[in-house]
Amino acid sequence: MTMPDNVAAAKAALAHLDIEQNENAIKSKSRDFFWYSPVLKARMDHLVADFVVSPRNEAEVIEVLRICYAHDVPVTTRGAGTGNYGQAMPMRGGCVMHLRHMTGVKEIAPGRVICEPGILLKDLDAACKADSGQEIRMFSSTWATATIGGFIAGGSGGVGSCTWGSLRDLGNIIRLRVVTMEEEPRVLEFRGEELARVSHAYGTNGIITEIEMPLAPAYDWVEMFVACEDFMDAARFAEELANEDGILIKLASVYEAPAPFDYFQRLKGHVTDKDTVIGLMVAPHSMDGFETFLGRRPQARVIYRSDDNDWARGPGPVFEYGWNHTTLRALKVDPSITYLQVRYGFPEHLNLVEKMRDEFSPEVLQHLEVLRENGKVMFAGLSLVKFTTEARLDEIVRIHEEAGAMIFNPHRYTLEEGGRQTVDDRQLAFKREADPKGLLNPGKMIAWDDPDFDFSEMYAYPKMTAAE
Amino acid sequence: MTMPDNVAAAKAALAHLDIEQNENAIKSKSRDFFWYSPVLKARMDHLVADFVVSPRNEAEVIEVLRICYAHDVPVTTRGAGTGNYGQAMPMRGGCVMHLRHMTGVKEIAPGRVICEPGILLKDLDAACKADSGQEIRMFSSTWATATIGGFIAGGSGGVGSCTWGSLRDLGNIIRLRVVTMEEEPRVLEFRGEELARVSHAYGTNGIITEIEMPLAPAYDWVEMFVACEDFMDAARFAEELANEDGILIKLASVYEAPAPFDYFQRLKGHVTDKDTVIGLMVAPHSMDGFETFLGRRPQARVIYRSDDNDWARGPGPVFEYGWNHTTLRALKVDPSITYLQVRYGFPEHLNLVEKMRDEFSPEVLQHLEVLRENGKVMFAGLSLVKFTTEARLDEIVRIHEEAGAMIFNPHRYTLEEGGRQTVDDRQLAFKREADPKGLLNPGKMIAWDDPDFDFSEMYAYPKMTAAE
Ligand SMILES: Cc1cc2nc3c(=O)[nH]c(=O)nc-3n(C[C@H](O)[C@H](O)[C@H](O)COP(=O)(O)OP(=O)(O)OC[C@H]3O[C@@H](n4cnc5c(N)ncnc54)[C@H](O)[C@@H]3O)c2cc1C
Ligand SMILES: Cc1cc2nc3c(=O)[nH]c(=O)nc-3n(C[C@H](O)[C@H](O)[C@H](O)COP(=O)(O)OP(=O)(O)OC[C@H]3O[C@@H](n4cnc5c(N)ncnc54)[C@H](O)[C@@H]3O)c2cc1C
Repeated sequence: MTMPDNVAAAKAALAHLDIEQNENAIKSKSRDFFWYSPVLKARMDHLVADFVVSPRNEAEVIEVLRICYAHDVPVTTRGAGTGNYGQAMPMRGGCVMHLRHMTGVKEIAPGRVICEPGILLKDLDAACKADSGQEIRMFSSTWATATIGGFIAGGSGGVGSCTWGSLRDLGNIIRLRVVTMEEEPRVLEFRGEELARVSHAYGTNGIITEIEMPLAPAYDWVEMFVACEDFMDAARFAEELANEDGILIKLASVYEAPAPFDYFQRLKGHVTDKDTVIGLMVAPHSMDGFETFLGRRPQARVIYRSDDNDWARGPGPVFEYGWNHTTLRALKVDPSITYLQVRYGFPEHLNLVEKMRDEFSPEVLQHLEVLRENGKVMFAGLSLVKFTTEARLDEIVRIHEEAGAMIFNPHRYTLEEGGRQTVDDRQLAFKREADPKGLLNPGKMIAWDDPDFDFSEMYAYPKMTAAE
Repeated sequence: MTMPDNVAAAKAALAHLDIEQNENAIKSKSRDFFWYSPVLKARMDHLVADFVVSPRNEAEVIEVLRICYAHDVPVTTRGAGTGNYGQAMPMRGGCVMHLRHMTGVKEIAPGRVICEPGILLKDLDAACKADSGQEIRMFSSTWATATIGGFIAGGSGGVGSCTWGSLRDLGNIIRLRVVTMEEEPRVLEFRGEELARVSHAYGTNGIITEIEMPLAPAYDWVEMFVACEDFMDAARFAEELANEDGILIKLASVYEAPAPFDYFQRLKGHVTDKDTVIGLMVAPHSMDGFETFLGRRPQARVIYRSDDNDWARGPGPVFEYGWNHTTLRALKVDPSITYLQVRYGFPEHLNLVEKMRDEFSPEVLQHLEVLRENGKVMFAGLSLVKFTTEARLDEIVRIHEEAGAMIFNPHRYTLEEGGRQTVDDRQLAFKREADPKGLLNPGKMIAWDDPDFDFSEMYAYPKMTAAE
């Protein structure tokens, strides 16, 4: 692969920074988890950065952005590259800026932490727990491998969202410090309404260099699997538990039978192919309340408790069965599985779930995550889809939408198509200010590239590097 | 007043314990806050215990109960006597057992505390905060004066219930240790379903000697008053704030105009008689989110912030304007004010509030407390009622009930009439076991005294000491 002159010049100007030399490493640092989607896999598999640079601090981030601006080189920021939707894929090559060195924790106080973006979620939690028995309110199920910056720029919520709602909800991010990509990059501090400019913007309009997040108390969560023979019993169990105001939970996931039997290897011998399974994290001081709740529901049986079990081989963290880890486990067993992200909004959530299940099971198996939205318990669906063709996948999406179940389509790489299919005006307006040349993670914001796009078909970024 | 022989004998047998000698003290320790109700005031004002004993520990509680059982002496337990509903009034005289010495904190762990019943809520919070930055999830607005035992046996919820629901909800009490009143009192440990036997049972079927409660993190809550010219704007503000999943609050109260102007002396000069006021407690790390929320609602103005104000004389704790402290403040200015306890259940809560206000304001002024019930934000009403006659009060109650707004009538001294007007079978069944002679706080459980009572009029306990 030959490097265009401008890119080579930028790379040379940054030679005093930590630049990846290994070709294989450059390839692997150019990839994220886009391949969960057969649609994206068919389109993005060949993409690769021209070079990868890992700044050590904000000053070096500024330097990377200034130099790349001067040379018209695209910059795609990378936390750990666990994103789906191809968020961290360098569509036009250029520079991948990897934040793995920026892992500092600057301050921990009651209810809040200030840190750098590149710290892994698990390391951030460990620091908060060691300091004062605290932890972040919510984390992506990629807690062990993903960064807080990537979670904020690319994620939406996760383990903890059953209590605290989504990342975008007021109060779930306190402050972000952001560097722009201009001739002379500026450093800005965002709070309140301004947070929406850059959170979940895929790094298309500014690079987050410091983060202030709210904290919750860290408990030794009791992790459990509960089995039910009836799927709707399991869905109601999860919802009703989340509605118990006095029982503190951090996770309530529902996996429709036979997914647990077929895909959760470590549950073999503990479940049958008739069992729908509920994954739970309950605060230890809520276990008495939980057991009372459970005692009222003889249709549910606890098959695993992290604090008390005789399993020869433990299942590992229960949250690593939830959120998008469910898809991962299914994929490993059956590579034809992909997924959808569905919003089953209150108060129709249970009805909608039942309807979609009647319509599609087993082609689409329900995987629900309890989520709070506007104070109400509802479900995020990360349904397991047996993939056949793109046309059928689109049809499944359409039928969900027609029924009133909103889809955040993970088979698209743009912000709009993966979101609510409309331009986020705040993100667009800020991109005009902060990235006048359109070099930050190009190809991810349709509103920037093609304001008149009508969403009648999948967007194809015209400047995307062509496959060879 | 002459003491019946059996009572004198019991008192003599307990002479080695801490027995109150002062007549005035005996009188004041025989009274609670029943007098908030003109109806109860007319009936209970004369009641007084024959003697007051203050056991130092569980062994002495057992001794009191054993001796009083042997001599057929009624025992009415007293925490601090801040209850309304005449809960702690000795209907037939006899013994008042005052738990003021039983204030030990036995253990504090992440998320839980074990303590004795007689500790004041504020002292319990202080101990938990000093130990590990924790506090109880919810407290009665009588935090400074009431005991945890009285709160559990007589209260329902309060400051914190906007997040955690009510005391009766699963998980909000972990364990209670209970002494029965039998020939040989037994000591029992209750968890789970068994907790309902004695919590909110007014001490009619067992005496709580040890309590295990869940804890939440203690924050330096920012206390605020917010004013709105429109009442329904204020009600919606409170509800919408409580529905913000990422903004952690501990209190959201709404006081209809002109109550704040007329009754909240320290707010004079800061509000007009047009202002409905919202009382709030917001976690400090949620203040950014709160300000964003506020900025979207220009109809609301913050008039007081505990962490930032130029008031010459501060208002004191904002929660001491909420829950039943609102009534107290109104009563002090206008002795003809009394109150009602109303349940405005989800999803009809806002409509019901509006309807009752249209019907009754200003005879009844709305005072709302945000509460969670079954996962949903709704309102508890502690409406301020301008009292005229008992007949009119009953009519106001009836109109509420007909509209679908349940009333917990604070003008009645029995469990049933102050509750859901039905027998709690678990409490009754346990009373049969634990208090076979019916000596514990007599006259408070209709189901015990008069199983066929038809609730067509106010219950009058036939054995109540007559007024002289
Ligand atoms: C198995 C699995 C489970 C998952 N579960 C969840 C889940 O529960 N919840 C959830 O929300 N997501 C989930 N995801 C998606 C993803 O893991 C999360 O969003 C994760 O937090 C991303 O972090 P990362 O460090 O890997 O980010 P990356 O993938 O490196 O980046 C994500 C996006 O953010 C941008 N970005 C990264 N850092 C910055 C920065 N400092 N400034 C500006 N932009 C930046 C990148 O350019 C990219 O567009 C899951 C993915 C997988 C594969
Ligand atoms: C201004 C004001 C505000 C209030 N605000 C609230 C509020 O926000 N929320 C709320 O729920 N209530 C409220 N109340 C009612 C009351 O203050 C609370 O219920 C309070 O917690 C009672 O505590 P206490 O120690 O004063 O109990 P007491 O009044 O002494 O007793 C209450 C009842 O419990 C019984 N009891 C006490 N201790 C024990 C024990 N160890 N074992 C068995 N039975 C026992 C008593 O016999 C009595 O029946 C308020 C009252 C006032 C006057």
